[in-house]
Amino acid sequence: MTLDLLSQINSPEDLRRLETNQLEKLARELREFIIYIVSTKEGHLGASLGVVELTIALHYCFETPDDLLVWDVGHQAYGHKILTGRRDSFETNRKLNGISGFPKREESIYDTFGTGHSSTSISAALGMAISSQLKGDFNKQHIAVIGDASIASGMAFEGLNHAGVTKANLLIVLNDNAIGIDPSVGALKTYLTKAKIGKKPSQDNIIEALNFHYEGPIDGHDLPELLKAFENLKTKQGPKLLHVITKKGKGLKQAEEDQVKYHAPGKFDKTTGEVLPKNNQDLPPKFQDVFGLTILELAKTDDKIVGITPAMPTGSSLKYMMEEFPDRAFDVGIAEQHAVTLAAGMATQGHKVFCAIYSTFLQRAYDQVIHDVALQNLPVIFCIDRAGLVGNDGATHHGVFDLAFLRCIPNLIIAAPADAIELRQLLYTATQDLQQPMAIRYPRGRGHIKNWKRPFEKLNIGEGRCLQEGSDVAILSLGSISGNVSQSIEAIGGRFSIAHYDLRFLKPLDENLLDSVFNKFQQIITIEDGAVKGGFGDAVLEFAQTQNYKGDIHKMGIPDQFIEHGDTDELYDLAGISSKKIKEKILSILH
Amino acid sequence: MTLDLLSQINSPEDLRRLETNQLEKLARELREFIIYIVSTKEGHLGASLGVVELTIALHYCFETPDDLLVWDVGHQAYGHKILTGRRDSFETNRKLNGISGFPKREESIYDTFGTGHSSTSISAALGMAISSQLKGDFNKQHIAVIGDASIASGMAFEGLNHAGVTKANLLIVLNDNAIGIDPSVGALKTYLTKAKIGKKPSQDNIIEALNFHYEGPIDGHDLPELLKAFENLKTKQGPKLLHVITKKGKGLKQAEEDQVKYHAPGKFDKTTGEVLPKNNQDLPPKFQDVFGLTILELAKTDDKIVGITPAMPTGSSLKYMMEEFPDRAFDVGIAEQHAVTLAAGMATQGHKVFCAIYSTFLQRAYDQVIHDVALQNLPVIFCIDRAGLVGNDGATHHGVFDLAFLRCIPNLIIAAPADAIELRQLLYTATQDLQQPMAIRYPRGRGHIKNWKRPFEKLNIGEGRCLQEGSDVAILSLGSISGNVSQSIEAIGGRFSIAHYDLRFLKPLDENLLDSVFNKFQQIITIEDGAVKGGFGDAVLEFAQTQNYKGDIHKMGIPDQFIEHGDTDELYDLAGISSKKIKEKILSILH
Repeated sequence: MTLDLLSQINSPEDLRRLETNQLEKLARELREFIIYIVSTKEGHLGASLGVVELTIALHYCFETPDDLLVWDVGHQAYGHKILTGRRDSFETNRKLNGISGFPKREESIYDTFGTGHSSTSISAALGMAISSQLKGDFNKQHIAVIGDASIASGMAFEGLNHAGVTKANLLIVLNDNAIGIDPSVGALKTYLTKAKIGKKPSQDNIIEALNFHYEGPIDGHDLPELLKAFENLKTKQGPKLLHVITKKGKGLKQAEEDQVKYHAPGKFDKTTGEVLPKNNQDLPPKFQDVFGLTILELAKTDDKIVGITPAMPTGSSLKYMMEEFPDRAFDVGIAEQHAVTLAAGMATQGHKVFCAIYSTFLQRAYDQVIHDVALQNLPVIFCIDRAGLVGNDGATHHGVFDLAFLRCIPNLIIAAPADAIELRQLLYTATQDLQQPMAIRYPRGRGHIKNWKRPFEKLNIGEGRCLQEGSDVAILSLGSISGNVSQSIEAIGGRFSIAHYDLRFLKPLDENLLDSVFNKFQQIITIEDGAVKGGFGDAVLEFAQTQNYKGDIHKMGIPDQFIEHGDTDELYDLAGISSKKIKEKILSILH
Repeated sequence: MTLDLLSQINSPEDLRRLETNQLEKLARELREFIIYIVSTKEGHLGASLGVVELTIALHYCFETPDDLLVWDVGHQAYGHKILTGRRDSFETNRKLNGISGFPKREESIYDTFGTGHSSTSISAALGMAISSQLKGDFNKQHIAVIGDASIASGMAFEGLNHAGVTKANLLIVLNDNAIGIDPSVGALKTYLTKAKIGKKPSQDNIIEALNFHYEGPIDGHDLPELLKAFENLKTKQGPKLLHVITKKGKGLKQAEEDQVKYHAPGKFDKTTGEVLPKNNQDLPPKFQDVFGLTILELAKTDDKIVGITPAMPTGSSLKYMMEEFPDRAFDVGIAEQHAVTLAAGMATQGHKVFCAIYSTFLQRAYDQVIHDVALQNLPVIFCIDRAGLVGNDGATHHGVFDLAFLRCIPNLIIAAPADAIELRQLLYTATQDLQQPMAIRYPRGRGHIKNWKRPFEKLNIGEGRCLQEGSDVAILSLGSISGNVSQSIEAIGGRFSIAHYDLRFLKPLDENLLDSVFNKFQQIITIEDGAVKGGFGDAVLEFAQTQNYKGDIHKMGIPDQFIEHGDTDELYDLAGISSKKIKEKILSILH
């Protein structure tokens, strides 16, 4: 790999010293460098490959960092990071103490706004543009780069709708590649596709109807065309949108051809593009697959069952049901609010609706959970994926607030399975005459149980179980963090008699179980892979207080701070809930 | 008042027995009846007056309740309630144990979906329509009636975007009156206005671009035209939208002319339309006005201050600043998500952004508070209005979850003033070199302090105060519920020595104050006008546990259930936090 040009570029200023005819060579080098690093260090691939030319053109034409550039979602920003002084640190991408996989304000002056969740860029850039206007700075440019999947989300529409009645100096670059992580869906996508192939007039289109100056569509891999468009748009005041057509994965054949797989492919051969085989055969299944395969199984014998995902058919494994029952499983796009209220509407008509949403994205639909589901006591089943610490995606993606923000909602059952079998049985239980809403939260990745396809068995709502008897201290765990607890107990060995209870339900709490624990133990530890403020530990404290329990309760969970990116085990340790930290806690109490 | 026709109508079936030429008379009677009841019993007026003909036409043409009718926001549904068996109970509207001011599933089979927050109707009706499709019922009609202010919200767009790629039998009636509670804003509104006056072709409009069959605009007060349109639309399968132009407040001159005032005017003279004078002169100010007037005052000397409201300039009193500094105070429409991230964008550029949102609507922007503001530690100031129990609007509008859902968010300061002076000083404090986000929550309505315009004084973040010394029991209160506590202490008189502390901050907690309380008291009561699960009481319990406090802590707050509508004092009692209930609690502990 020779990086004649890229190796000289330590800032966009260096980039802007190049001749325009050097930019295509730079694009090749940048693409090669991204492929090289991601092939060995892993990360998001396709999105950044698709915007190589766009990234170069933006930094070349605009005076970053004085001009303000916001990258929607942010996993498309690798090229941006490399060109803005992070080439040499790029191999630490997504690693603990390394650079973040997303734009991050603390990391660089070029990262004007942290992104990770989609569809925030228009609002953020508009806010910056209005600020500039108020300060009397009418030359500063404010640019949001947003994909077609993200612009179809309600929040982006709210931003467009406001921007269209301002005179703000806002440029939206619509990076239209017809895919998010999975292919884009929805009527707007259909419309954009027509615009692309020239079936609709570009006059009076949706964007112009919202009072934007619209240009395009242009080829987003054609550097001269991009440069020309940006130089022209620079001279126009007010809200404007450039429609750019790109190919996700551009420059790596396999990535272009299988865009879903190469969104974040893991390690691959940088020359052939082949994803390196993972030896997964003997591993326990992912929680996602336990969800996806179990509801498929249930759906086969119960035609009331339907599934909904907001843009994560592959990630959530709802794809299995979508393939077999395309009429009963819905990808609604990046539209969490709609997903939840759609589920509520279907529940009023007697359907059993599984609404699968990542924990961090359920934050987008919090009001709908309260107002449309819980208040009406509709038996929607929320399958909350990626709960707890998610690893290398980091702070924007950890699903650590759900237990706290759900616990205050009346009517809602909240469950967290300790393992794959419990997840399977909770899913089954939810199909058995459920009379109220239920949330089931489970983590990203694999559990520790291989033989999980047990016969279905209905669990009692609100009933926990004892995993291990003991007498010195009781550990109460909720969810899959149970695995860390078991390891810590094993590591301590026979020195102490440690009881371990799997509560299974945050709500309703198993008060009988807790009463017996209160009667027997003077030392209790609660542990959860969620924010320690407001969640399971607090629920136990609350009940203990009503029971006049005077022993000691030690809460363990995610401390009151945002946790960065890194391998999950590293993060567990950082957050103080690794098996090692649990062991230390137990010993500190018993010594 | 003679209600020849209305008095005979106890269900839509009765309505459908009328001749079409009788419907105009019925419309007059229905309008008269609404005016009569609302003039004496109070409630929402303008919205329901605007849809009298529409309501009659819908129930006349469609086979409700078999056909499913969803009223967005729901305060437009008075006519619907009166025609569907609730004429005689309508005088109990919004009263404790009376009917709800919004559609409510428990209340009637004709209320297919509970609404209160805006923009949910398209998603809900689409869910119902897809359910019907799955059940093989292709004749059932599913109708969402939504205003132009509500359809401009992101959630509605998400529903449209999905509906446009389905074959669902969905009819959206766009009730376009150019106003929500305050006049509609945004580019879509501008566009609709052009459509109305014929400046844009109805072909290839925004709605058709989203793959809807579009008809209109038609006059929503013209019954024959409405009937014709509905009969025609009934025969069309798939998603369709009828654009209807109405006048909010139709039929009452003053309500037509001052639509903001007559949205919910309180008592008025049903003949003249004049709002009855309220004797407010000697009353303490509303918290809203303390907010609105204080930030206006602050903005005069600090040009970094800006204000944002999502569609509530009047309700939040941001209007004062909007009038004097129109460039620095923004109504962004019903777009809470956008409002918060816009604020974050402006904060990155050094502006001091006051983002005023009702507590119940902040639920709509929960993710943005976490992901765009707190994670980046941007010093946005959230002014959380209508916190606690709001009274007659009821369960959809109570702002009782905020303390619980905010407490788990790192970096966020959370304050709740006990009175108008504290609110004023907290607002001032937030302008003094704030380095992190801050939430200030305060209730609907008036406090008890008249002389509130004290000189500005910076408060110490995280510092509470002792309102009354004592020795038998300590009451720790957060926020304006402090007033109820003071009354209860007064009612008990000198029989016991009761200490009362105003904590002011949920986060950071005043740990010094709490330590001294733990040292002195064996009995502690915490009280908050928020959900008792996860909020202030839990925060005190949590700290007590770390301090090894072994006395008794009694939590008071909103119990784990949805609280209905009624006068605020009645609801305080129902929820167990009236001064009477606090007094009983204190006495039960001390006896």
